[in-house]
Amino acid sequence: MYKLEPKVKAMISKARVARLSTVDNDQPHSVPVVFIFNRGYFFIPLDKKSKSVKPEKLRRVRNIIKNPRVALLIDEYKEDWSKLFFVMVLGKASIIGKEQGEILARVHKSLLAKYPQYKSVGIGESCIMIDPQKIIFWKNK
Amino acid sequence: MYKLEPKVKAMISKARVARLSTVDNDQPHSVPVVFIFNRGYFFIPLDKKSKSVKPEKLRRVRNIIKNPRVALLIDEYKEDWSKLFFVMVLGKASIIGKEQGEILARVHKSLLAKYPQYKSVGIGESCIMIDPQKIIFWKNK
Repeated sequence: MYKLEPKVKAMISKARVARLSTVDNDQPHSVPVVFIFNRGYFFIPLDKKSKSVKPEKLRRVRNIIKNPRVALLIDEYKEDWSKLFFVMVLGKASIIGKEQGEILARVHKSLLAKYPQYKSVGIGESCIMIDPQKIIFWKNK
Repeated sequence: MYKLEPKVKAMISKARVARLSTVDNDQPHSVPVVFIFNRGYFFIPLDKKSKSVKPEKLRRVRNIIKNPRVALLIDEYKEDWSKLFFVMVLGKASIIGKEQGEILARVHKSLLAKYPQYKSVGIGESCIMIDPQKIIFWKNK
């Protein structure tokens, strides 16, 4: 399990959004995502609609199946540039489905706690799990 | 030149930050960036420090030289998920340097107008130019 510095962990815990990048052949593909960080792994829900015909929703999943290398970027823009920072997680992603019910139940519980929006939206039955291989932290100054 | 829908153009014009993804072999790499959109192209400044030994600052440039395919993601997180949107620009990037002084002068002028922070920070003498090949727009409902 990847060991995080406390200040980096605090930034990750505070963040409400991240940007997930995957690769399709030589072309990067990025989308904003909600996520949780739990026991050393990052989890990104796939919402309920993702099983219908929504190619852009599924593209990230198709890319991960072909190439599990992803980047998860956490940052927050401020007009005071001295306060800028980012955390870039380089990791290996996999798709967690119903067969891993125990992990999924834990992820759903954390997602509901972090994002009350899920009380009305409903969480899908699979998620992306990222195993961090390297975490790059940058702060201005 | 890529033709943008007015609503997408408005979102791009309003955005203060974007996330730039490049690829290093099979590994995506993402960083937050400031940018301007000018005459159909996106421009991302490389700040003055980028010529010193800052590998993370230069990584995006090294990646672009090896593989010009990039993704530029524009979005804004809101707790009201019905207001979420994103614009993903898939494009070919190149590095613009002093030899293209006219473009650079125009870019610097636009950057200064958009980001008054550059009055004290100083803008570097090169930038990344992205020629959009495809622009994907997504809006929640």
